[in-house]
Amino acid sequence: MNSMFSDRISDVPRSFIREILKVAIDPSVISFAGGLPNRNLFPVEELRAASNKVFESAGREALQYANSEGDAKLRESVSARYRERQGLEIPAENILITSGSQQGLDLLGKIFLNEGDDVIIEEPGYLGAIQAFSVYRAVFNPVPLTESGLDIERLKQVLSIKSTKLIYTVPNFQNPTGITCPEANRQAIAEVMRGRNVLLIEDDPYRELRFTGTPKESFYKTRPENTVLLGSFSKIIAPGLRIGWIAASDRIMEKLIVAKQASDLHTNHLTQRVLYQYLTDNDLDAHIKSIIRVYDRQRLAMLRCIKEYLPPDVAHTNPEGGMFLWLTLPDGVSSMDLFNLAIQDKVAFVPGNPFYVDARKANTLRLNFSCVDEDAIQSGMKRLGRSARKLLDRNLA
Amino acid sequence: MNSMFSDRISDVPRSFIREILKVAIDPSVISFAGGLPNRNLFPVEELRAASNKVFESAGREALQYANSEGDAKLRESVSARYRERQGLEIPAENILITSGSQQGLDLLGKIFLNEGDDVIIEEPGYLGAIQAFSVYRAVFNPVPLTESGLDIERLKQVLSIKSTKLIYTVPNFQNPTGITCPEANRQAIAEVMRGRNVLLIEDDPYRELRFTGTPKESFYKTRPENTVLLGSFSKIIAPGLRIGWIAASDRIMEKLIVAKQASDLHTNHLTQRVLYQYLTDNDLDAHIKSIIRVYDRQRLAMLRCIKEYLPPDVAHTNPEGGMFLWLTLPDGVSSMDLFNLAIQDKVAFVPGNPFYVDARKANTLRLNFSCVDEDAIQSGMKRLGRSARKLLDRNLA
Repeated sequence: MNSMFSDRISDVPRSFIREILKVAIDPSVISFAGGLPNRNLFPVEELRAASNKVFESAGREALQYANSEGDAKLRESVSARYRERQGLEIPAENILITSGSQQGLDLLGKIFLNEGDDVIIEEPGYLGAIQAFSVYRAVFNPVPLTESGLDIERLKQVLSIKSTKLIYTVPNFQNPTGITCPEANRQAIAEVMRGRNVLLIEDDPYRELRFTGTPKESFYKTRPENTVLLGSFSKIIAPGLRIGWIAASDRIMEKLIVAKQASDLHTNHLTQRVLYQYLTDNDLDAHIKSIIRVYDRQRLAMLRCIKEYLPPDVAHTNPEGGMFLWLTLPDGVSSMDLFNLAIQDKVAFVPGNPFYVDARKANTLRLNFSCVDEDAIQSGMKRLGRSARKLLDRNLA
Repeated sequence: MNSMFSDRISDVPRSFIREILKVAIDPSVISFAGGLPNRNLFPVEELRAASNKVFESAGREALQYANSEGDAKLRESVSARYRERQGLEIPAENILITSGSQQGLDLLGKIFLNEGDDVIIEEPGYLGAIQAFSVYRAVFNPVPLTESGLDIERLKQVLSIKSTKLIYTVPNFQNPTGITCPEANRQAIAEVMRGRNVLLIEDDPYRELRFTGTPKESFYKTRPENTVLLGSFSKIIAPGLRIGWIAASDRIMEKLIVAKQASDLHTNHLTQRVLYQYLTDNDLDAHIKSIIRVYDRQRLAMLRCIKEYLPPDVAHTNPEGGMFLWLTLPDGVSSMDLFNLAIQDKVAFVPGNPFYVDARKANTLRLNFSCVDEDAIQSGMKRLGRSARKLLDRNLA
């Protein structure tokens, strides 16, 4: 009777991370496994005040059905922020409010992907995108991502042998690696794509969480017609609100609105109004600075601990922002084996496996530093170091 | 360059109703076109109080990422209400919270429909379902719906010649007709389906808005394994919250959770908490009674006006609840022609066309009575009667 289900749903990988998180729920476990922003930094009081204002001044309106495109003023805010922060001219009409940027990925899959369409993704890559596009039965063509950026030769090669529909990238402080695509590599990507009818999906939820280094230019700036930009309030305000957006050209917007309507009519209206009120009454930049201050301290603590506690042949990325850091164990050492050891010592992380399309036996792992304070980092990394040394010794023996 | 889009998205009808509503936005137009609950009845103050409580007692938690299944306590409430109101035993684990019941339809399309799968829908039928299933390229097989219920002979016929995947029905106070499927017809449908591996989707957002008559038994009671039940808080509390649910068997839930995760991770967490708090602190039954009182008065006013102002050869349904009433003009008279006349006289409604799969030239139309007070009904129906007589006279000439 399994045949009653669609073919597509059997293609979607279950979230390995969710399974992992179940293990990490034990309060005695120090978890670097989460992908969550730090709840201590949510502007609870400010959102509460904003919420009261909305109930007072526009309660009935906020509780009624609304536009599929999203609240007009909120779209204006997003548009204005692109202009002020990045010099990007994206009119409010080209912004669709979504139920988190995960929905953005689902809508893009809906309007672009036919079964069997070729999609290029970074490897390792963001699991949520793999899940969303799997639903539409995309064929994934991974291109390796390192701190030098996307592998340009491999990119060219895939483009030459496959009729690629779209390229998916998280160019800033990528999930899972924390890597930011360097400027020269972005130019090389744009160069390779010139003249090709390939859409680039630029998923950019972490951009504003930059601790150091200089901001990089969005692909949307150089090729707006062929770039779709995804954004989110989840990492800079709060994820429980489920508010993200898509910025896209007119032609694409038209299809997105049809898809949005068929998917859930519109995004939670009350929350959109509350968020707009919050943005009006508060200094978002100052709030983001306070997040950056904490995350950066935690990142530095983690980097110090890597040096101090981990075997020297474990490599790591050097993220300039975001929430994640990526470790690479020596060749042939399984991060799943490390996980099984580490969890006995009450420390958790996400093994690299789910971030590869072929779910290989990976020697890589993701560490989250946004949700753990410096003390927890100190103790947790000590434990992780112990487990790593134990595993490496065993592998040598 | 249109080829860049997926085949599926070109199959989805744009919402004709949205276009119609644009015309009806002129404040001098009396509109029976909306599909909205009456905003004057939203429990604004109560939701505000609930919201303050949540921010106070669990703000950080409510603003964080949450389960794809939905808030555990809210799912318990829905489960308890099924037990108390309908004697249905549906454990909380079998309830998935969705971003409105439109998302429920999208998720069901995702997990069940392969391209070309046969779907039976009522005709006239709910436009949102047609849109949602079109995305997954279903083939629609309409079965006529009248006040006697679904056409059983036609149902049998379709089932015998098509390998039907699912049947979609709104059994109570249907949108667009206001029809409630009679008990005997429900039994006949269940009888026809016995032994067949066909899923029945019972979309039931209006059930609790019953003004008169006796409640009918859910299909879920007699065939839970093969029925999926959709519910929503949109009509009994407020639609801007975008909270609905799916009740389904274990096997189906498992797939739904995967699809939900890929679609938007989870439903707005803050709003789920606020809604649960509202349900805990308030008497929902009393609130629903107050809605019923108003809608019933408006329904009766509309029925009186039909008798008084409309030509006698215009037929109408007799809804026992809900928000809509359905008119049928004499054969060959186009409701679109009536719309064009009526809008000049500043009254709007939705012509029947979009509620038929083949978008035929319909002689039917939908009237909404939830959003218009008795005075507006009086004036609006007078105008509609004038236009209808003008059109019928012209057709006779």
